Amino acid sequence: MSDNKLTLYTLPTPNGIAVSILLEELKAAYGGPEYEVVKMSISDADIGKVHNQVKSDWFIKLNPNGRIPTIVHNGFPVFETSAIDLYLAAQFDKERKFSFEPSAQSHEYFEEIEWLFFAHGGVGPMQGQANHFNLYAPEDLPYAKKRYLNETKRLYSVLALRLKDRDYLAGAGRGKYALADIKTWSWVRFSDRLGIDLSEWPDVKAWYDRINERPAVKIGVTIGAA
Amino acid sequence: MSDNKLTLYTLPTPNGIAVSILLEELKAAYGGPEYEVVKMSISDADIGKVHNQVKSDWFIKLNPNGRIPTIVHNGFPVFETSAIDLYLAAQFDKERKFSFEPSAQSHEYFEEIEWLFFAHGGVGPMQGQANHFNLYAPEDLPYAKKRYLNETKRLYSVLALRLKDRDYLAGAGRGKYALADIKTWSWVRFSDRLGIDLSEWPDVKAWYDRINERPAVKIGVTIGAA
Repeated sequence: MSDNKLTLYTLPTPNGIAVSILLEELKAAYGGPEYEVVKMSISDADIGKVHNQVKSDWFIKLNPNGRIPTIVHNGFPVFETSAIDLYLAAQFDKERKFSFEPSAQSHEYFEEIEWLFFAHGGVGPMQGQANHFNLYAPEDLPYAKKRYLNETKRLYSVLALRLKDRDYLAGAGRGKYALADIKTWSWVRFSDRLGIDLSEWPDVKAWYDRINERPAVKIGVTIGAA
Repeated sequence: MSDNKLTLYTLPTPNGIAVSILLEELKAAYGGPEYEVVKMSISDADIGKVHNQVKSDWFIKLNPNGRIPTIVHNGFPVFETSAIDLYLAAQFDKERKFSFEPSAQSHEYFEEIEWLFFAHGGVGPMQGQANHFNLYAPEDLPYAKKRYLNETKRLYSVLALRLKDRDYLAGAGRGKYALADIKTWSWVRFSDRLGIDLSEWPDVKAWYDRINERPAVKIGVTIGAA
């Protein structure tokens, strides 16, 4: 494996599991790649005290944004959850079981890309802000709490529109379980923290449950846990 | 051109110009594609009153998220700024003057992808929230104003780290002007609305000016204006 060394710097957060789920799907489908897991700290209190803190000088060299997840594959670092998943799919999903082949002619590939960006620029950041104001912020700001909770629900209603008469977000017919589903599901998994009830969108709930039952998903969500 | 019909639904916002700049670069470099511009309204007050409002039923069928920019190319709709740019590059940037060829072996391509996601999930959403609380919100919330202004500046400092000794975000050597630069620049262009002074990051300022001088950029930023 010396010419196929893969290290995942992570935690089992919504973004973290979006990579570890894919890695476990790849292992289940192809028997590999093997990967080393380095659990990181995102706590500011650990800066300068803990080697594996995301703002450490050595880590900033891998990811100047100082965030998990980040991978290094044969010396090449990749950051941003969705970029990592596209990279891993290109390297290891040779039969395109969880992704689509990049091709200017492939509508399926660009559906995947658009839903991946929708999740990456919409669901993730907005639900992240909803978490901040509803769960962590030092000030109680009803306006901000409501703003991001409402936006998160609006984005779920967009998913519901897409998932009507479909099983997955991208692909012909009813779609194929693939990267955009993994990225989006990894945020939806944490929606109960905000008191969001998925039964408000039955097609989203059915999609959620379908993915939740996958053995690789059950393992993926635990990677990097204590 | 009946088999190469391209319509851009847009406004000259940070996300809107990230597509119109690329289209103008393509025209300058290749002489095409020609595209029709449909100026949309994003004002809630126009819902039900103005045909070209982004929450209109006909538009939601093109983009279930109800946002600009959106394109339709030969009947195929694509939404999400960065997905549109990747799509347009695949169709029209045949010599890869503004993009990189997708290939599992291409580190340059995945650098482009990771910086595109960095801009799409970081700079865009966070600067957008800074705009909301500092310029538009009906309540004065100093905590939220500061949170997003600081995060925007932190993200600019990440760009500064990357642009040290480089001209552009992705590519070998000093890099190549390409999609991630266009997407990111389109947000940085509006930083003065937040009172952000780019001279705080000289390498970002130099990169900004380098792109600002491009003739296609000067045209691109006007597309969809009144």
